[in-house]
Amino acid sequence: MSRLVMKFGGTSVGDMDRIRNVAAHVKREVDAGHHVAVVVSAMAGTTDNLVNLCNEADPRHDRREYDSIVAAGEQISSGLLAIALQKMGVKARSWTGWQVPIKTTSDHGSARIEEIDADNMAARMEDGEVSIIAGFQGVTAENRIATLGRGGSDTSAVAMAAALDARCDIYTDVDGVYTTDPRIAKHAHKLDRISYEEMLEMASLGAKVLQTRSVELAMVYKVPLQVRSSFDPPDNIPNVPGNNFGPGTLVCDEELIVEQQVVSGITYSRDEAKVSVRHVLDKPGISAAIFAPLSKAGVVVDMIVQNVSPDGKYANVTFTVPAKDLDRAVESLEQSKDDIEFDTLEHSSNVAKISVVGVGMRSHAGVASKMFETLAAHNINIQAISTSEIKTSVLIDEDYTELAIRSLHTAYGLDEEQE
Amino acid sequence: MSRLVMKFGGTSVGDMDRIRNVAAHVKREVDAGHHVAVVVSAMAGTTDNLVNLCNEADPRHDRREYDSIVAAGEQISSGLLAIALQKMGVKARSWTGWQVPIKTTSDHGSARIEEIDADNMAARMEDGEVSIIAGFQGVTAENRIATLGRGGSDTSAVAMAAALDARCDIYTDVDGVYTTDPRIAKHAHKLDRISYEEMLEMASLGAKVLQTRSVELAMVYKVPLQVRSSFDPPDNIPNVPGNNFGPGTLVCDEELIVEQQVVSGITYSRDEAKVSVRHVLDKPGISAAIFAPLSKAGVVVDMIVQNVSPDGKYANVTFTVPAKDLDRAVESLEQSKDDIEFDTLEHSSNVAKISVVGVGMRSHAGVASKMFETLAAHNINIQAISTSEIKTSVLIDEDYTELAIRSLHTAYGLDEEQE
Repeated sequence: MSRLVMKFGGTSVGDMDRIRNVAAHVKREVDAGHHVAVVVSAMAGTTDNLVNLCNEADPRHDRREYDSIVAAGEQISSGLLAIALQKMGVKARSWTGWQVPIKTTSDHGSARIEEIDADNMAARMEDGEVSIIAGFQGVTAENRIATLGRGGSDTSAVAMAAALDARCDIYTDVDGVYTTDPRIAKHAHKLDRISYEEMLEMASLGAKVLQTRSVELAMVYKVPLQVRSSFDPPDNIPNVPGNNFGPGTLVCDEELIVEQQVVSGITYSRDEAKVSVRHVLDKPGISAAIFAPLSKAGVVVDMIVQNVSPDGKYANVTFTVPAKDLDRAVESLEQSKDDIEFDTLEHSSNVAKISVVGVGMRSHAGVASKMFETLAAHNINIQAISTSEIKTSVLIDEDYTELAIRSLHTAYGLDEEQE
Repeated sequence: MSRLVMKFGGTSVGDMDRIRNVAAHVKREVDAGHHVAVVVSAMAGTTDNLVNLCNEADPRHDRREYDSIVAAGEQISSGLLAIALQKMGVKARSWTGWQVPIKTTSDHGSARIEEIDADNMAARMEDGEVSIIAGFQGVTAENRIATLGRGGSDTSAVAMAAALDARCDIYTDVDGVYTTDPRIAKHAHKLDRISYEEMLEMASLGAKVLQTRSVELAMVYKVPLQVRSSFDPPDNIPNVPGNNFGPGTLVCDEELIVEQQVVSGITYSRDEAKVSVRHVLDKPGISAAIFAPLSKAGVVVDMIVQNVSPDGKYANVTFTVPAKDLDRAVESLEQSKDDIEFDTLEHSSNVAKISVVGVGMRSHAGVASKMFETLAAHNINIQAISTSEIKTSVLIDEDYTELAIRSLHTAYGLDEEQE
């Protein structure tokens, strides 16, 4: 009998009717012969309410108290799902993070899972009991509740799957991972399979289907991860024992993907801002002078471009930061103006980062140049470029976001599989 | 430095403004030099909402899941109070039942506290940190959350006070214990002190100021218990160090009450129902035949009267049960009709139990007869009587409740202390 971890988000457990729908999904897998553990988020709205209470008490609240308060949300939803399953005749019990226990670091609000002791739970699952685990939470060495940060339930699910040697199905409000955002490109199509590496890039680059850390964890522990829709009727999902991957997207090892495309997807992010430091002396140490204060202010810099003047004396340095950190970035640069000796500082949030992702880039030349050519053909100016082994990102004027996505989607042949 | 446990109920922590008011009460005691632990209920309404969700999931839900779900309420309020105190510059942290740990039996929904290991907490209190304890909850030997039943936060507070060797102040929506319900008898007055034994009788007999089990526990562990109002402005309560019992009621050992009254209070309960089993053979074993099925049905019988017919052959047996159990009681007697061989079964909820409570009854004769005489003088018929060492209860027609209370209050001289 194979073990399966199923994860359901806050919208999927938003009220008792939806919790019953989740219970029906779980029962289907139990009936198919799986030993099932379920990871749940808090009921939609609960976490926001609890966060608001904390902020009302004190906007600069103690993160340890915050964690204990917001973790109550998953404690409630996991208990309710256990009752709903019992009502359907399925043996079930809830587990809080400290009951499992899921041991984490003491970084309250963004703790990392260090160790999971799932022996007790595994024994009960062998006896046919479904385990319902409160997502998003664990317990520190000081015996206090810690949360993994927003979206942490995905991470809880993958970590539980790793500890239980199970596969992991993430139920969400979309039915899988798409070549790009279907709201923008109508010819976007769902991918049957995608490699961990690609999914990791896509999650980092703005595809909000899975939390980045959960993909990292799945990759490290080789947990087969599937993205499925929780809004399908529970009995509409084909479920042949032994081969019951449904119509979602499987995130897996590259080797398991037979017909690997060169490019798997196009992502975009509008959450970037561009900063240009104009007319600085192009001398050794100038980069350090610019980026040290940003690092000190906790601002993460992404793309960097340096243009040197024809006489080689001066440079303009342009880089991107998360839009939410723009004010902080500008402030810290202004404070270091005497060190950097720049002329002017320009900044804009009217930019978008467009990325092309695919493991095929490793072996296929010309993937990046096709990107540049396609954008040029549509008169889209590239303001910055950054690359990794399996992705190329460009910064463009935000107004061209949709045009860029659609033309790249076509250029890389991603439209073709549309039925 | 003396230790103090303060307990606040759900209304007192009903929203953030009220939580801040509680924090101000706590700060006052900290500033007065106490080492303070606080026990809180869930914010008013939270527990009801969570109970409703459990019932929506399944009216016959698993009590273990119920406990885990409803205990989330106190986890939230204790965290919020900790944040509010920190905001005022008071060192504080929250403790859930399992963190303390408060070890309980596995009777989920009505667990009993077995052991509290407060060493860790006490050490932190010595360092000036206020402990905020989630009331109403503990953890079983199986590492699951158990609740103590409704009103259990009073019990948590007294148990914590016993474990910490502290005195215990229960803040509530009344300012103390009264000789009787002031809504009925306008000459009722607040008692400065009352003995554990009397308070125990009064709590059992319908005075809803304190939960019965909390008084039992205070009596066994000799915890000085004070009932105070949380609606007083925090700085209006006189607080002389070393003698800072406020204007509430102190529940304490009999010996500490200098001017002990013969009768301390008059209580009433309308939650009773009367059942009469008519015309049964007055033979050995007839009581067992009547009361065994009730016991089996989980119905607790209170007062019992047996009237034998002039020829000594037949009897009528009349007794009281909680009104909520009346249907169950009648049903189980009807099912045993063949064994009991009764003629008819009569029942009524239109009754009230009036009780006179006072440790002075032990040494003063005539307390009960004064009760009977007073009621007779007002033409109030007594339908049943029960007594203990320090109380006498009578069952009367419910319509006479107020008249009985007022005339007894006057007869026992309780009006006199009115200013």
